[in-house]
Amino acid sequence: MIASAVELFRRQGYHATALSQVISESGAPRGSIYFHFPGGKEQLAVAAVALSAEEGDAVVGAASAGATDAAGFVRAMTAIVSKRLESSDFRAGCAIATMVLELAPDVEALRAEFDRVIAHWRAATAAQFEHYGYEPARATGLAALLLSTLEGALILARAARSLEPLQTAGEALIAMLEPPAIPRRRSRSGAAKT
Amino acid sequence: MIASAVELFRRQGYHATALSQVISESGAPRGSIYFHFPGGKEQLAVAAVALSAEEGDAVVGAASAGATDAAGFVRAMTAIVSKRLESSDFRAGCAIATMVLELAPDVEALRAEFDRVIAHWRAATAAQFEHYGYEPARATGLAALLLSTLEGALILARAARSLEPLQTAGEALIAMLEPPAIPRRRSRSGAAKT
Repeated sequence: MIASAVELFRRQGYHATALSQVISESGAPRGSIYFHFPGGKEQLAVAAVALSAEEGDAVVGAASAGATDAAGFVRAMTAIVSKRLESSDFRAGCAIATMVLELAPDVEALRAEFDRVIAHWRAATAAQFEHYGYEPARATGLAALLLSTLEGALILARAARSLEPLQTAGEALIAMLEPPAIPRRRSRSGAAKT
Repeated sequence: MIASAVELFRRQGYHATALSQVISESGAPRGSIYFHFPGGKEQLAVAAVALSAEEGDAVVGAASAGATDAAGFVRAMTAIVSKRLESSDFRAGCAIATMVLELAPDVEALRAEFDRVIAHWRAATAAQFEHYGYEPARATGLAALLLSTLEGALILARAARSLEPLQTAGEALIAMLEPPAIPRRRSRSGAAKT
């Protein structure tokens, strides 16, 4: 039920998503949504936003698995969101971006949850840049820049119904990456051992 | 009436904005909205999106007026959107981003207008990077990167109710700017004469 809500909020946002649609898409019995979420759509949305933290972890994990340096990581992150966007016929962008723009900062319970999830994504992304040898402050900056770039390029790509903005912005960022200050560590496990 | 619609769509998106709210905010007589926009909210939204093209021109124009190089331009663009966001208590981000995520690519009339306006912003921004001496292909990439960064950082900033993501992402981008290939031209008028 929460997974169905994540997909509906991602594709059409909060206001266009009716609880009845979540019920029909998930196949859950009608009463169960009110049993589990007596607070209604807003409470369901808080749960959906929390679930999308795990999705962010999965994206960062998948991108880092195939990457040996920051350029490869940025390229893989861009490729993962591009692939999902394209396979959804340009409907499935970020799980929470539409809701953030519809509801933040007015609905405080949701705003706090958006902020918590985004901070989590930023920390995971910054840790990855640190792993590639960037100083912590620089890794923090690169993480903010990469997540902003992907979120923004997903808007441009949906409007264009094309992956071109994602590819162009991603490659422009990769072209600017300076060498890390510290030699790259060989692997996560190797890094943990040193 | 269209200006009121731009502000409402910017702050709360398409679905949460009722025509009755546009009428009350604009002070226009009730009948006039149906007279000018017989196609209803969708037609009004197309007009609002078209109007936001001018707003993008104004932002690029204001940012370039105070900037002498690409770093100054990126910093000024970031400052302009930051100031508007803060003065609206974190409600006024990009005029069309919320609508893009709510409606594209499903509502084709709007999607095409979003795409047209964004392409216009990208061209104006790329022209500015060319003015600072970057090669056309690089200027195109930097424009896509800068607009994506600002659009995305506006999402992060609304969720955080803080300008920090805009500042961090903007400064991270500035720190990466390579020197232009061609020495910077002194001014727009100077460039036109050469």
